[in-house]
Amino acid sequence: MSKYWSKQVHQLHPYVPGEQPKIANLVKLNTNESPYGPSPKVLQLLRDELVERGDDLRLYPDPTSQSLVHTIAQYHGLQDNQVFVGNGSDEVLAHAFNAFFIQTKPLLFPDISYSFYPVYCGLYGIDYRAVPLAEDFSIEAADYREAGGVILPNPNAPTGMLLSLAEIEELLQANRQCVVIIDEAYVNFGGQSAASLIDRYDNLLVVQTLSKSRALAGMRVGFALGHADLIDGLVRVKDSFNSYPVDRLAQLAAQASFEDEAHFQVSCQAVIRDRELLVAALAERGFHVLPSSANFVFAAHASKAAADIAVGLRAQGVIVRHFNKPRIDNFLRITIGTPEQNTALLAALDRLVD
Amino acid sequence: MSKYWSKQVHQLHPYVPGEQPKIANLVKLNTNESPYGPSPKVLQLLRDELVERGDDLRLYPDPTSQSLVHTIAQYHGLQDNQVFVGNGSDEVLAHAFNAFFIQTKPLLFPDISYSFYPVYCGLYGIDYRAVPLAEDFSIEAADYREAGGVILPNPNAPTGMLLSLAEIEELLQANRQCVVIIDEAYVNFGGQSAASLIDRYDNLLVVQTLSKSRALAGMRVGFALGHADLIDGLVRVKDSFNSYPVDRLAQLAAQASFEDEAHFQVSCQAVIRDRELLVAALAERGFHVLPSSANFVFAAHASKAAADIAVGLRAQGVIVRHFNKPRIDNFLRITIGTPEQNTALLAALDRLVD
Repeated sequence: MSKYWSKQVHQLHPYVPGEQPKIANLVKLNTNESPYGPSPKVLQLLRDELVERGDDLRLYPDPTSQSLVHTIAQYHGLQDNQVFVGNGSDEVLAHAFNAFFIQTKPLLFPDISYSFYPVYCGLYGIDYRAVPLAEDFSIEAADYREAGGVILPNPNAPTGMLLSLAEIEELLQANRQCVVIIDEAYVNFGGQSAASLIDRYDNLLVVQTLSKSRALAGMRVGFALGHADLIDGLVRVKDSFNSYPVDRLAQLAAQASFEDEAHFQVSCQAVIRDRELLVAALAERGFHVLPSSANFVFAAHASKAAADIAVGLRAQGVIVRHFNKPRIDNFLRITIGTPEQNTALLAALDRLVD
Repeated sequence: MSKYWSKQVHQLHPYVPGEQPKIANLVKLNTNESPYGPSPKVLQLLRDELVERGDDLRLYPDPTSQSLVHTIAQYHGLQDNQVFVGNGSDEVLAHAFNAFFIQTKPLLFPDISYSFYPVYCGLYGIDYRAVPLAEDFSIEAADYREAGGVILPNPNAPTGMLLSLAEIEELLQANRQCVVIIDEAYVNFGGQSAASLIDRYDNLLVVQTLSKSRALAGMRVGFALGHADLIDGLVRVKDSFNSYPVDRLAQLAAQASFEDEAHFQVSCQAVIRDRELLVAALAERGFHVLPSSANFVFAAHASKAAADIAVGLRAQGVIVRHFNKPRIDNFLRITIGTPEQNTALLAALDRLVD
């Protein structure tokens, strides 16, 4: 608290990111990072850049990330003016809340969802209504109507559960009056992107990140896909905030990632395969696991409290995420690790639950 | 324009950054980048990181940039809780406008100054008053009183002119009721940092960047120094916007830069020396040059229009910045380049002016 703060700063409820502990040999399954590294071609390109043109770091990056924008547009079969790049999908989302969701009617999003959404609403003074998930934790598309805006993750987080493209389209048709954001941070682990609907719905914005399936959380690149008028709105907000949000190496790394489709596919498939193995192994150990299309599972044990399991795992060097919130306080969100990490997790669990 | 935009997006007047043309062999003197590369130790550290721990790019960076914050605090003789790091000083400034300048009374800044300030005001709905510079383009500290906030660059941009620490202190004493930001993007080229006043003025925020004197514009790192309560306000806003604004390589690069004081000093001294040579050479060619403490000069020719000179230079592969604005439309802002670039500039000028 300070008398020097703008008034609204006192009312902010900042997001609390999963911890990034600096402990060696931790089995880190708490922030949904990829268990595999980025494409070796990404690392090679960055090394070459530093050797051949290292002094160019003295120069500002391209403020529009034009080359990366073009690569992403080509990859998704879109035009360059349908792509916006930012400093991680969190920054892209922040600009999108500002650009589209300050409306008379409230913004709608699921009550159990990415916990940054209400934080953005606090930052921009956006009125919102959290729509309860069904009893089985699924999103009912029909619950989202007459909104000032709609945002949902697909698959949802932290549940991991997926909406079909048909359900997304139903939601778009019921909300032609406002922007609908589909936040696809985890879509590459079993979902279908709504990007294919962009040319039919000028109110659809699809947001993706390179932090999960492309293993570049450390480089902070995310992007939005949508009608050129929506992208233009994002650009106007971005250029009123920070002209150069994506640094030279991040632009290069992101671009190289899209140019190694094989590495991307192999990594995603390995995570999907190991997710199914982990789901079965957790079920054997008395866990109820929600059906996941993400790189994590959301699981509740039949008899042992999630908070206690999280503490017990941590004591053994395994960290997972526990949200102390209504309806989900008995669940753990567990990132899919390497086969070795998943085995270590199960061994640690075996020491805690019967 | 789009019916889907939030209302205020239609009223934004985004900042227009200096161009980053992709033309080879350009003498690029338009965006005040360092003519020299970053410390070789920065490049070496980044290369080593990519070789030894490249796969760590899959992991999120430290959201608080703690190690970098500590390095900067030590460098400036401050505590860690007096330092805030962001994605370039533009992002730091954006958060600071939001955190401190939404007040009942108007924000004050010079009428000729960094043109992003009024843009931030548009983004956050901040009422401001542009205070005219004196006839000789100097800032009169006594003109800034009873404000809801004060921000000024020192040295000022695009004039390059410096306020003394005594004048800064006069300004702080006259404005104990609000936050005063001293934007020191160019302070290392001849100014004295106001960081030494932080422990006496809890309303002072000093903002610096690694984009100019540390030759890391391409990596996007800036920071703020001030009382822990002000830093806390910035952290609250940042964590309501984007938890991880500075990527892993940017944090490392910035830290390594502070660990090579010799490279930093040699680069700054070379720029200062070449600035004095350029000022003399421009004066010989009929230019009026404002006294500069920055890595650029602001110069008007006695008889030839600045806009025409800029076009004539561009035709010869030399780009400088011209602002088509009242009072300064006859000036050119020219970044100090390498001795070779400065010679090329003068040769190109000799073909245009007598």
